[in-house]
Amino acid sequence: MISVVILGSGNVATHLTRAFLKARDVKVVQVYSRNAENINYLKKKTLITDDLENLKNADIYIISITDDAIEEFSKGLELKGKLVVHTSGSVNMNVLNGDFDKGVFYPLQTFSKGTKVKFKKIPICIESNTKNGEVILEKLASSISKKVYQIDSKQREKLHLSAVFVNNFANHLYQIGNEICKENKVPFEVLYPLIKETANKITKLSPKDAQTGPAKRNDIKVMEKQLLQLSYHQKEIYKLLSASILKTHK
Amino acid sequence: MISVVILGSGNVATHLTRAFLKARDVKVVQVYSRNAENINYLKKKTLITDDLENLKNADIYIISITDDAIEEFSKGLELKGKLVVHTSGSVNMNVLNGDFDKGVFYPLQTFSKGTKVKFKKIPICIESNTKNGEVILEKLASSISKKVYQIDSKQREKLHLSAVFVNNFANHLYQIGNEICKENKVPFEVLYPLIKETANKITKLSPKDAQTGPAKRNDIKVMEKQLLQLSYHQKEIYKLLSASILKTHK
Repeated sequence: MISVVILGSGNVATHLTRAFLKARDVKVVQVYSRNAENINYLKKKTLITDDLENLKNADIYIISITDDAIEEFSKGLELKGKLVVHTSGSVNMNVLNGDFDKGVFYPLQTFSKGTKVKFKKIPICIESNTKNGEVILEKLASSISKKVYQIDSKQREKLHLSAVFVNNFANHLYQIGNEICKENKVPFEVLYPLIKETANKITKLSPKDAQTGPAKRNDIKVMEKQLLQLSYHQKEIYKLLSASILKTHK
Repeated sequence: MISVVILGSGNVATHLTRAFLKARDVKVVQVYSRNAENINYLKKKTLITDDLENLKNADIYIISITDDAIEEFSKGLELKGKLVVHTSGSVNMNVLNGDFDKGVFYPLQTFSKGTKVKFKKIPICIESNTKNGEVILEKLASSISKKVYQIDSKQREKLHLSAVFVNNFANHLYQIGNEICKENKVPFEVLYPLIKETANKITKLSPKDAQTGPAKRNDIKVMEKQLLQLSYHQKEIYKLLSASILKTHK
């Protein structure tokens, strides 16, 4: 049985708390939020506190707060000899500042409040500066997910950068697609199956092999015709991405 | 029972032929290819020909060939009074040239040779210049798919344009993500669940509401740090898409 204290009440903290509460072999000893009201709903299931001096004993302390605040927050912890980890994709492990073992427990997924999350298929990237930390994190991650990866801070930074392209930027392209549909009174939902298949396809083919479209074929006639239909802003994106595709495939 | 002649042996033609051969209420009377060898494998299931003067009688003739060739090809057809359609997303219906009823039968999905396709969930966009044509196309589309949309040529053009963003360009972003992973020896597969969830999420939230990331938050510190890690080419895309996200969300 691994005992856990969760420090935070944001999106990731909430989803993790829920998953750990359900997991066999994990005991959520306590949840901390600087505003106890945020976690009042957990009262029946675990201890809650808004006082860092009142933290209970546990195998692992999980800081799940906004990236910029992690360093300062960790300085305030009196957890000598314990294992303290954060859950951020972009923050180096060594930002954790104190006389405790350090680690990272990073679930790589996009979390929204309200939508349910199945952790089983979510990759969890773990790292620790001690062997013992690695073992505990491996166990803890395996208790909620089938996909556990040892990823160091340098690699995690790159993974996070890559995620900006495949998640943030891809979503923005969906938005532009949505705009074009709206302006022309076409239901955007017609594109849902295409969007999903595009995402599925690259788990079977490499993205390079999966590429199709006028830019790949260097079909100038189609590209010129399409450019004429776009707003200035859309046009810039169309041109740059088409040039980039062409460059990749020439 | 709707009788069909398929004219073409490319990707879309092949997938459609397979689907119609399986469909109840549809009879594939004949398949044409200018190179009969391409369709030899169909011999046991339907008539094949490489001679346009030898086309059999049918309710509908489906031209499924490369976009640029549709107009010329249609001029060569002696099908007075019949219904002739093409399957292209970007070609206007009126490009079909002859004394026959015209129409479009456009399955909106990305087709690869080799990968199987379930038509049931693929949107089929139909259009005809006659009421009778509309009725036949509606029936034919419904025989293989649950998602049938009446979409005119103008709307279809916009849908196709939108698809360039959500399919071609999104796939290219996957490729950049893959590049970044490769360069840093991180397995790209760690990102598969994120990629799939990003695509699924917008069927529940609008892309605008689903947007996350440093650009949306205008988190200049993170963006500057990330820009430093990119190649010149990746940087240009990062900057333009971040500016576009920021503009949308300010």
